[in-house]
Amino acid sequence: MNRIDEVISGIRPLDEKAMGEARQRQDKLTKPQGSLGQLESVSIQVAGIKGDPRPSVNHKVIFTLAGDHGVTQEGVSAYPSEVTPQMIYNFLRGGAGINVLARQIGARIVIADLGTGALLQRHPDLRDKKVALGTMNMAKGPAMSREQAIRAIEAGIDLVEEELAKGIDVLGTGDMGIGNTTSSSAITAALTGVEVVAVTGRGTGLDDEGWRRKVRVIEKALQVNRPNPRDVLDVLSKVGGFEIGGIAGVILAGARYRIPVVIDGFISGAAALIAAFLAPQVKPYLIASHQSVEEGHKIILQHLDLKPLLNLDLRLGEGTGAALGIFLVEASLKILNEMATFDEAEVPEKR
Amino acid sequence: MNRIDEVISGIRPLDEKAMGEARQRQDKLTKPQGSLGQLESVSIQVAGIKGDPRPSVNHKVIFTLAGDHGVTQEGVSAYPSEVTPQMIYNFLRGGAGINVLARQIGARIVIADLGTGALLQRHPDLRDKKVALGTMNMAKGPAMSREQAIRAIEAGIDLVEEELAKGIDVLGTGDMGIGNTTSSSAITAALTGVEVVAVTGRGTGLDDEGWRRKVRVIEKALQVNRPNPRDVLDVLSKVGGFEIGGIAGVILAGARYRIPVVIDGFISGAAALIAAFLAPQVKPYLIASHQSVEEGHKIILQHLDLKPLLNLDLRLGEGTGAALGIFLVEASLKILNEMATFDEAEVPEKR
Repeated sequence: MNRIDEVISGIRPLDEKAMGEARQRQDKLTKPQGSLGQLESVSIQVAGIKGDPRPSVNHKVIFTLAGDHGVTQEGVSAYPSEVTPQMIYNFLRGGAGINVLARQIGARIVIADLGTGALLQRHPDLRDKKVALGTMNMAKGPAMSREQAIRAIEAGIDLVEEELAKGIDVLGTGDMGIGNTTSSSAITAALTGVEVVAVTGRGTGLDDEGWRRKVRVIEKALQVNRPNPRDVLDVLSKVGGFEIGGIAGVILAGARYRIPVVIDGFISGAAALIAAFLAPQVKPYLIASHQSVEEGHKIILQHLDLKPLLNLDLRLGEGTGAALGIFLVEASLKILNEMATFDEAEVPEKR
Repeated sequence: MNRIDEVISGIRPLDEKAMGEARQRQDKLTKPQGSLGQLESVSIQVAGIKGDPRPSVNHKVIFTLAGDHGVTQEGVSAYPSEVTPQMIYNFLRGGAGINVLARQIGARIVIADLGTGALLQRHPDLRDKKVALGTMNMAKGPAMSREQAIRAIEAGIDLVEEELAKGIDVLGTGDMGIGNTTSSSAITAALTGVEVVAVTGRGTGLDDEGWRRKVRVIEKALQVNRPNPRDVLDVLSKVGGFEIGGIAGVILAGARYRIPVVIDGFISGAAALIAAFLAPQVKPYLIASHQSVEEGHKIILQHLDLKPLLNLDLRLGEGTGAALGIFLVEASLKILNEMATFDEAEVPEKR
């Protein structure tokens, strides 16, 4: 059995007993039943994930994975590929959006190079998981080999396993990679069967002409490669990205180790789609942090049957939405753990 | 000039210069322009409110105001009025939802009795602003006198002014009062002209029959009292509540002292409607924390032209949604203050 199958076979259903106990406690807390909406349901989900009726989170970890995309040769992004390595250095210096929000919520960030186009300077906080110097141009052929797709997913699994010893009570996913909304749209179209125009957005800020070009490039990539929707690794290798494969691995490993997985936006969503097609039993471990501006993200969330916690018109990636989502997960658990019950507070119950 | 008019006449427009500078800085930060959506717009709004292009928040204060409602005699709530004082004691012991979330975000809570039906035990953390022992039954006549309505609003102003010396960089509103969704629906119908069935929800958990009764009671209250929609104090006195008037005062004072005002859910929304009808210039100071489950809340937000930050199916009140909203306001300012610019990070800009 290979590494990926091994991890998948280790994913268990949620603990119904812990969920039942968490639900019972929620119903005894000094508030009308259900009045904290998704904060209640998330706390119950996390109880089931952790197999603990009153779980708490101390160690919060955001995995931000980077990769470059050969398809940028087709002019599908408003920014040049050189931005990817420079933003990694920005992450390492603490100046990016994800650094700010991770500090606010008290999370560690794991930054990993899954396949940027540059040879990066070594840095103690940068995890080198480079599969190749960026993908090939999917408009002309497969983005990567099947073997590389497997290595990308395995690298994501490694990142989680290497971090387990330091503690992970909840994890968030994040991405960096110029051109990766193009790849994510192609993955979404290939796996869900929804037409390309309906899953393609403006990425980092395309104008109308740029958007039309992006749609044509994705359609061409799907025609040239004919990814097989019943073979997820075929889809990932033909129109995917190294960071996207890596995030899928992070998600699978999260579920395997019973860690709540807070999904960021569109790119992380495409990775979640890959993970869920590989292993449907991963779905109960997922929490959607937010509804992205990107068109295709809504399709993904519908497909995964996830209701996003936030809708703030975000489209940055990096794990920024996931960081805000982790705050809400923590809020949900503090409610479950710290609120008084009707009995304790001597408050009369519903008549 | 009376107190309320004095406060209203002190409300200034937002500082356009500070907003322009904040917007310029947002556009130089290492992210595609606009990619942090509402986090960006909120930071610019707060810059305008505070007249500071790079504002920060240290002192966060949530004002949770309580009052009882004579209309509960008509059987419009799933809980008895005795819950109101018991929940205040729960607030004072730190066991309620608002205590948990305020602790998480590092906010102070100001708990005030604006008009509960019980004579409460004194407590150092409880502010006594009692106007009367609960309102009268609005299904049979005015909920309060016009003079009491004025006193309730003034009490809210007092609460903010008394807290200024300790520092308030951002404030949140909150409520506690069995029966107060009934009053809020009546206020919303009276001020917006929308029919009662469209602004009436299930409060703390009414069944179908209870909901129909609640609608009939509100329609009766409006028929019996005929509040004049062009006279806000007439509406507040005939179908309002003491805590709702108090929250309107908190909102007016917040705007007067250039403090961002984070509005909780439906009851706080009804108070915001009152404040905005009294003084339209209050609107730019408002930030809607969340979209409540209550039907009428959407109508209020449309009327105030506010886009809520969260949509978590909350309906607890107390300021719980406002607490989560304050976290997001703080996130927006940390982004503005702490992120590196393209120049600082040597990241190439959009081509």
